[in-house]
Amino acid sequence: MVDVRALTTLLDGEYAAVRDLVRANLATYASVLEEAEELGMDEFRERVRELVVEMAATGQTGMGFPEEYGGGGDLGASIAAFETLAYGDLSVLVKVGVQFGLFGGAILQLGTRRHHDAYLSDVVSGRLMGCFAMTETGHGSNVQALGTVATYDVDAQEFVITTRGDQAGKDYIGNAARHAELAVVFAQLEVGGTAEGVHAFVVPIRVDGAVAPGVEIEDDGRKMGLNGVDNGRIRFDHVRVPREALLNRFADVRPDGTYESPIESSGRRFFTMLGTLVQGRVSVGGAGINAAKVALAIATRYAVRRRQFEAESDTEEQLLLDYGMHQRRLLPLIARTYALHFAQDVVRTQLHEVFSRAASPEGGDEHQRRELEGRAAGTKALGTWHATRTIQECREACGGAGYLAVNRFAALKADTDVFTTFEGDNHVLLQLVAKGLLTDYASEFEDMDQLGMVRFVANLAVETVIERTSAHTLLERVRDLLPGGDDEDQEAGLLDSDYQLAMLRFREEHMLVGVARRLKRGIDQDRNPGEVFSQVQDHVIATANAHVERLVLEAFVDRMRSLPDDTPEDNAVALGRLCDLFALSTIEADRAWFLEHARLSSQRSKAITREVNRLCRQVRPIAVDLVDAWGVPVEMLRSPDLAG
Amino acid sequence: MVDVRALTTLLDGEYAAVRDLVRANLATYASVLEEAEELGMDEFRERVRELVVEMAATGQTGMGFPEEYGGGGDLGASIAAFETLAYGDLSVLVKVGVQFGLFGGAILQLGTRRHHDAYLSDVVSGRLMGCFAMTETGHGSNVQALGTVATYDVDAQEFVITTRGDQAGKDYIGNAARHAELAVVFAQLEVGGTAEGVHAFVVPIRVDGAVAPGVEIEDDGRKMGLNGVDNGRIRFDHVRVPREALLNRFADVRPDGTYESPIESSGRRFFTMLGTLVQGRVSVGGAGINAAKVALAIATRYAVRRRQFEAESDTEEQLLLDYGMHQRRLLPLIARTYALHFAQDVVRTQLHEVFSRAASPEGGDEHQRRELEGRAAGTKALGTWHATRTIQECREACGGAGYLAVNRFAALKADTDVFTTFEGDNHVLLQLVAKGLLTDYASEFEDMDQLGMVRFVANLAVETVIERTSAHTLLERVRDLLPGGDDEDQEAGLLDSDYQLAMLRFREEHMLVGVARRLKRGIDQDRNPGEVFSQVQDHVIATANAHVERLVLEAFVDRMRSLPDDTPEDNAVALGRLCDLFALSTIEADRAWFLEHARLSSQRSKAITREVNRLCRQVRPIAVDLVDAWGVPVEMLRSPDLAG
Repeated sequence: MVDVRALTTLLDGEYAAVRDLVRANLATYASVLEEAEELGMDEFRERVRELVVEMAATGQTGMGFPEEYGGGGDLGASIAAFETLAYGDLSVLVKVGVQFGLFGGAILQLGTRRHHDAYLSDVVSGRLMGCFAMTETGHGSNVQALGTVATYDVDAQEFVITTRGDQAGKDYIGNAARHAELAVVFAQLEVGGTAEGVHAFVVPIRVDGAVAPGVEIEDDGRKMGLNGVDNGRIRFDHVRVPREALLNRFADVRPDGTYESPIESSGRRFFTMLGTLVQGRVSVGGAGINAAKVALAIATRYAVRRRQFEAESDTEEQLLLDYGMHQRRLLPLIARTYALHFAQDVVRTQLHEVFSRAASPEGGDEHQRRELEGRAAGTKALGTWHATRTIQECREACGGAGYLAVNRFAALKADTDVFTTFEGDNHVLLQLVAKGLLTDYASEFEDMDQLGMVRFVANLAVETVIERTSAHTLLERVRDLLPGGDDEDQEAGLLDSDYQLAMLRFREEHMLVGVARRLKRGIDQDRNPGEVFSQVQDHVIATANAHVERLVLEAFVDRMRSLPDDTPEDNAVALGRLCDLFALSTIEADRAWFLEHARLSSQRSKAITREVNRLCRQVRPIAVDLVDAWGVPVEMLRSPDLAG
Repeated sequence: MVDVRALTTLLDGEYAAVRDLVRANLATYASVLEEAEELGMDEFRERVRELVVEMAATGQTGMGFPEEYGGGGDLGASIAAFETLAYGDLSVLVKVGVQFGLFGGAILQLGTRRHHDAYLSDVVSGRLMGCFAMTETGHGSNVQALGTVATYDVDAQEFVITTRGDQAGKDYIGNAARHAELAVVFAQLEVGGTAEGVHAFVVPIRVDGAVAPGVEIEDDGRKMGLNGVDNGRIRFDHVRVPREALLNRFADVRPDGTYESPIESSGRRFFTMLGTLVQGRVSVGGAGINAAKVALAIATRYAVRRRQFEAESDTEEQLLLDYGMHQRRLLPLIARTYALHFAQDVVRTQLHEVFSRAASPEGGDEHQRRELEGRAAGTKALGTWHATRTIQECREACGGAGYLAVNRFAALKADTDVFTTFEGDNHVLLQLVAKGLLTDYASEFEDMDQLGMVRFVANLAVETVIERTSAHTLLERVRDLLPGGDDEDQEAGLLDSDYQLAMLRFREEHMLVGVARRLKRGIDQDRNPGEVFSQVQDHVIATANAHVERLVLEAFVDRMRSLPDDTPEDNAVALGRLCDLFALSTIEADRAWFLEHARLSSQRSKAITREVNRLCRQVRPIAVDLVDAWGVPVEMLRSPDLAG
């Protein structure tokens, strides 16, 4: 028997206290789930604002800010709180993310004491609402190309912020349409005729509730979901802000117009600034994973209540979860959710450590920051795609009842849809991951844009990459772990975590070598690098995906191998099965690749499918315990007819 | 250069006139797309009702009814009109489906002249609104187990309709919450203490707008989408209707309480009645395919307007559709949409022929009806899953802009979501397909429930199935078409439609034999048949999927081989590439299976992936023409910022 409480304790980990605070707040404000349906857009936006301010008063949303400004001084706890908030209404979640993560986070991470003293206390309390004006209509993922300009006027000692052209209007900006008084605006800095690249400025966009002079704000209107968040477009017509409005942690302009920065390369400077925003990606990835938990909790409970068709008996219909296909649909998703949960633990811990060190006098370690960025990008992509896929599968697994708004899937599906896009489009993020792998974090290439990456690879000694990835060693390792080719023993070793890991490592490194080789060959043939990249792009994305899946499995296996001594035996067994189910269903999903590369025989490939089915049957009796252990507040399950 | 107009003519086929009528109506009523967002649920329901009645006046919605009642007397045209209507707001579509397809269709197909004369003229004009009360809270797919009872009272010569228990309330019934005056109610008929199985009755549920005595109606409330349709729950408390209320085409009760039916087996009678509803599945499948077209039209146009990142050039960002990954995301979906379009043509034609014959004195051919039902179920499942997947991919491919309600994806996604569930849950439908394959339409097994199927297979001489499927012959055929194993010639024959078809046929028949063998082995080992079925279920579903994909490819290839003589050469070439792209991306998606079963070598498997990429590059320049040829009215694309 699974000890559900002990499993929850294990999953909550060091942040149990803040998670429980958020759970209590979710229960207190549970009526927001109905309000999201019943209120008009305007009223709901106001209601969400109220709620965010009330939650802020409990300390839940300010965990990441320094204690001197009313915060909790614990970035990890801040992420954990955000993840847990994703069990509830997601407009509330995203409003919190905009206000405290993006807006407050930019002031904290990009600003210096003068900005902190001026704003942070009011930001933390929610008295001062702000927005994060980075994305432009014509420039989403390619931030470096954005078109808003900030020109330094040395006489007035002011920056003049201007929107140049149609495509340069800020767009989809949360908090912009209604509530923000301040905006952190990303703009191309021009000083004395020199373009210094993208920098961030604090710009008042409303004064006493009225839109500030020179600022134009348009409402983005109704969206697929998240209609409690007031997204909007902002344009600037020669809006003047004082020199001190520049968030000057990484670069400053002296009164006389001298530009100075401790970071020499403008590209590196740009990525350092963007790097401070990694927190947003870690947050959204975690939120996606937890939104998937809500869907699985509902669908799993439904599947042990709902009967359909006589099967094992003539007189009673069979429970949905006793059907093999239904197990196939839900249980590997539960396993993957556990795996991603542990992967999220790793990236949250890394974020906490890197940023805690960065705030100290010694500063952060460059290499660790890069590793963090890759991991954050990858976990965000896989976590949010997992949410989209899982919520869809769970809705379908609840049939027509899943379509009624009262049963939560409507909101879950509509609200999470944009997770795969915001805080970095998932495909672009996976390219970022691949770039990191290809350059092996060599510092001189960190600030390359996409074209730069292609050019770099053209010059790369591809042999070096091959050596570094030790493909041959890994190949041997996989062979060692494989049974001796004896057909009767095709299932041996499938449940060995070392074998599973070796498989995923082999895939990743083999793919990486392949991508590098293809890029190099294209360039050697003197073809247009952009065209070469375009043709290899699906391979690039697949490589990044393989890398992240390997990290996720490692996180799960590491957790399995370091369980506390007092872990109940049955819990350890349950986690072991989930880990196997995740590993084998992951290999199964890409078994074509392993077959193509002679890492699986036909017999063994089929054996993996059988083993996945067997694991599903083993997990079936504990499925409800496994979803209960996530501790989704019962008020958040709603779905009276589905979840009971 | 693709001749877009000629391609549209080819696609519209014999129903060009009615399709153009619907396109014109969609343009006339285009404001409904905004009204869907702006109006409250109550107002929107009324607006949709109005619109449906106005469209009915144009003749568009009554094409399937006899001319004597104001209809068009052409079932095929009726389906074509419905498919085209799916380019617009889908609440309008579903309201039309409920009123004219389900409600009107039941009266037409299950009733006799007394019902036709009494109701059809008013149904066709929309003066009389009705609903189709089949589904119950506890019984969705398993209609045979529903709990509403109709007892014949011989003294009063009336049926007494009663809802027995919690789970037997009618649920999700479109038109029930507001507009329906009549309901076609499916209930267990009891005559003189004998249960005669499920039959349909015409029951007034509102009189002069007030709910009828003994009837209780509850509103299903807000749904994920389709909020212009008033779904509700209905319960009956001893509601009396005259003996003539029984829709008596396939069974009747004489005044003295004698039950009579031209169909002896009660199971067969039940499936014959359900069979008349196949029209609904054909309609929904076609609607799903056309909803996918709208999404692809928007995303493809956006991809040739939107630039992101410098790639081929230092100075200009690259168009999305010039990225290999973006081609991979959209173009195989365009190919699959074409394939499904042609498959829909086949099933629509079959439906038209079978039902036209059925209405004639000679009646329909039993075997053809069974074939039609399997094809309708399979096309519906694949078409609606395709819609869900395609709309999601297209939304993501349009980034943040795709999330704004103005850009149509919000409504498309929310409204189509339930297509995979209603008119038969897709998994249940694929099981139905598999059942048809396993029994090879042997008439004595047609009316088996799920358990019956298992028991039947236990008794099946599995060898017979093996012979019938001619696996060996096919295997030889595949070998013949394969190149001689020469590594340098791995790509030979990939673009041969016969090779592609042989691959899909081989997969289907091999899977079918495998399923039959596994079922038989389980039963031979004396295991519980339900448990055996549960363990083989994923294999069963995969077999059905393989079958339907083969039918879809056949439809495409057949169309290719019978193009009119005046088809412009470039159009023929374009269709040929799409057909190859569909075939090879389908094989690629399941290449693990072909590798496991030695039907692909590693080299050839990789060659298929390369060929898919190459085909994507060839299709890229004509992508916009291909989506334009669907003739989605420009007003329906909406998305001013995306589609231009």
